Amino acid sequence: MGRHSAHPEESVGGGTIQKATVEEHAALIRSLVTVEPRVETLSLADALGRVTANAVPSPVDLPLFRNSQMDGFAVRAVDLLMVPVTLPVAGAIPASAATPPPLVGATAVRIMTGAVIPDGADAIVPVEDTVASDGSVTITRTRVAGDYVRERGSDLRAGDPLLPAGVRLGSRHLAVIAAAGLSTVDVRAKTRVAIITTGAELIAPGAAPLPGQIFDANVVALVAAVSAAGAAVSYTARVTDRSEEMRAALTEACAAADIVVTSGGISMGDYEVVRETLEPLGATVTTIAMQPGGPQATALIDGVPVLSFPGNPVSTQVSFELFLAPILRQLSGTPAAVRERRVLAVDVTSTEGKRQFLRGRALPNGGVELVGGASSHLVAGLAASDLLIDIPAETSRLTKGDTVETLIL
Amino acid sequence: MGRHSAHPEESVGGGTIQKATVEEHAALIRSLVTVEPRVETLSLADALGRVTANAVPSPVDLPLFRNSQMDGFAVRAVDLLMVPVTLPVAGAIPASAATPPPLVGATAVRIMTGAVIPDGADAIVPVEDTVASDGSVTITRTRVAGDYVRERGSDLRAGDPLLPAGVRLGSRHLAVIAAAGLSTVDVRAKTRVAIITTGAELIAPGAAPLPGQIFDANVVALVAAVSAAGAAVSYTARVTDRSEEMRAALTEACAAADIVVTSGGISMGDYEVVRETLEPLGATVTTIAMQPGGPQATALIDGVPVLSFPGNPVSTQVSFELFLAPILRQLSGTPAAVRERRVLAVDVTSTEGKRQFLRGRALPNGGVELVGGASSHLVAGLAASDLLIDIPAETSRLTKGDTVETLIL
Repeated sequence: MGRHSAHPEESVGGGTIQKATVEEHAALIRSLVTVEPRVETLSLADALGRVTANAVPSPVDLPLFRNSQMDGFAVRAVDLLMVPVTLPVAGAIPASAATPPPLVGATAVRIMTGAVIPDGADAIVPVEDTVASDGSVTITRTRVAGDYVRERGSDLRAGDPLLPAGVRLGSRHLAVIAAAGLSTVDVRAKTRVAIITTGAELIAPGAAPLPGQIFDANVVALVAAVSAAGAAVSYTARVTDRSEEMRAALTEACAAADIVVTSGGISMGDYEVVRETLEPLGATVTTIAMQPGGPQATALIDGVPVLSFPGNPVSTQVSFELFLAPILRQLSGTPAAVRERRVLAVDVTSTEGKRQFLRGRALPNGGVELVGGASSHLVAGLAASDLLIDIPAETSRLTKGDTVETLIL
Repeated sequence: MGRHSAHPEESVGGGTIQKATVEEHAALIRSLVTVEPRVETLSLADALGRVTANAVPSPVDLPLFRNSQMDGFAVRAVDLLMVPVTLPVAGAIPASAATPPPLVGATAVRIMTGAVIPDGADAIVPVEDTVASDGSVTITRTRVAGDYVRERGSDLRAGDPLLPAGVRLGSRHLAVIAAAGLSTVDVRAKTRVAIITTGAELIAPGAAPLPGQIFDANVVALVAAVSAAGAAVSYTARVTDRSEEMRAALTEACAAADIVVTSGGISMGDYEVVRETLEPLGATVTTIAMQPGGPQATALIDGVPVLSFPGNPVSTQVSFELFLAPILRQLSGTPAAVRERRVLAVDVTSTEGKRQFLRGRALPNGGVELVGGASSHLVAGLAASDLLIDIPAETSRLTKGDTVETLIL
């Protein structure tokens, strides 16, 4: 039972239902989900938003070579001690030039931004400080050695890290990898999540429902939530209430994924396919002191953690948000969900002994209002909300003006 | 010249260089970028993070039918006025059942969560409040009509909007669309951006550089930045300093995109391919009073706005962040970049008359430190920073402890 407090509550079939708090269940799931970090190599075009697996050492100095910061003239600073001075112009160096010939003393070479500075030159005179005439240039300002010179390696030395490990790659990070000549980067592989939705009444959105059938919103919600948490969906299945069908899907799911999530079939009714299939495999079936999302199960099958959430769409989504999203976000380097304290705009009653996650909407003045009811089938209410209001288990009544903790969706 | 203040500064070739502030240039670009909104229809699996083009009316009531909130027994409340009461059990209704037969008075029907409630029944008794025996059930609590009944349409009525227009689709939004039986959603099409990087010295990352060549970091940075802003890259090209090559790429880019971005070839040197190509086409070439990123141009070619940023990688990226990213984020419904006021941990000097965007790093105590120097080739310094420090043009000196505005990257 891991860190659960073992209070047997009810006996159902051969199994024992345990009771747990949200924190205890979250800790149990954290102890089960021990995903081995894997590395994958991606092209830079595919790596946006991914996280560096290791520090990325630079194979080169940056800049690659000593080059000009300005369009102007490469000179020796010593030739400009008295200005104005007119120097013969010994050629021009575009940015694309190969190694130019060395600068001979008391001459100037026309040079473009980014071009290789010839040996012998030690300063660049910006074109604004010059007057060019046929074959020579008159320079009106003195310069000291190093002016407008970008030294090789002045940004970064070969061997220094372009980026440390654990950086979530944005455009500026990908740019420095490219600038150092690398076309790929090693990133943390995405955690692979399998999704099994259950219920003989479920049909795919877009199909025509018979009486008693409903559209499976859970697979759509879980696929999107897994992606939004920076993980990858590696398997989905929808199964009815036949245990052999569930067993087959579980085997495939565990072969394809690091974590398996199921929805439905876990409560106190008959035809509870997840409970019936998982209990003989050693699952822990738990009643969490929370609403929505009370009945839950966890198992380790073929070494893969299986998290079973209840099937009402709001219960499924709130369970995912509380128990799996934080883990997936951490694994993928996605920022954690934000918690904010807000002031209730209405009175709220809550079931004592159960932690409630009510759907709410932020108000501009730091307030929060309720959206829809507390029932776990209110999928439109959840869609219209932008946060969950977290009411502690010991609280049965809050009044307008009380401060509550909220979890931003 | 649009909203530019027309202060001719320099004559170069046949063109006139204009001076503008960051705000003036941003306003000019906003006036040029008038992207027609387009709609595309996506499967729910592809729509995460996209923005609804229109309100999405529900084709059905939610719930689709009157169903049970609990596993238990469907009854008439009137039969429970005196408890305990024992009623004969007239069958069972799984969640997947078709329309069940009506309830005959003074009987109970076993029912599962989500199952169709038979006509005649008006309350559900949770299984916890019952004791079942062979063919009958003893109920220990009274109920009123409506208890644990989910009425058809109690979440949402057919015709009501599942979602309003302009919602950025998260998992809970996709869930409600699926629950209503829809398998697709109309979203705003992504703005298509073409990217042309210029410079005869540029080679692709991964290639072997000859002396004087550098790796093109700008295409990688711009592709990633466009994607991060919620737009789509529809064309990329890398051109040298030949104007006919640039003209051909521009024609292709304008045919393929809503907005064209170029980098490089826009400053005061020779071989400035973007300026040379765009000026005869009526481009506005501008010097913005900012560092990095001074030389800029805008044009309208084949009706498509062309934004030309300078080619130093830091200049390109800062220009994108200031001038195009806000527009693309707004078009895609991506949250705007955050601005924060922070306290300088060091003294800072700045060029008076030019607004500076220095690279910095946030400190935990609300402070900010500088990262690397101000020069626009310091691509590693930009990668190591997490914000830009915005120093006003009129400021030449700030001291440790002064408050500055920062733009979070």
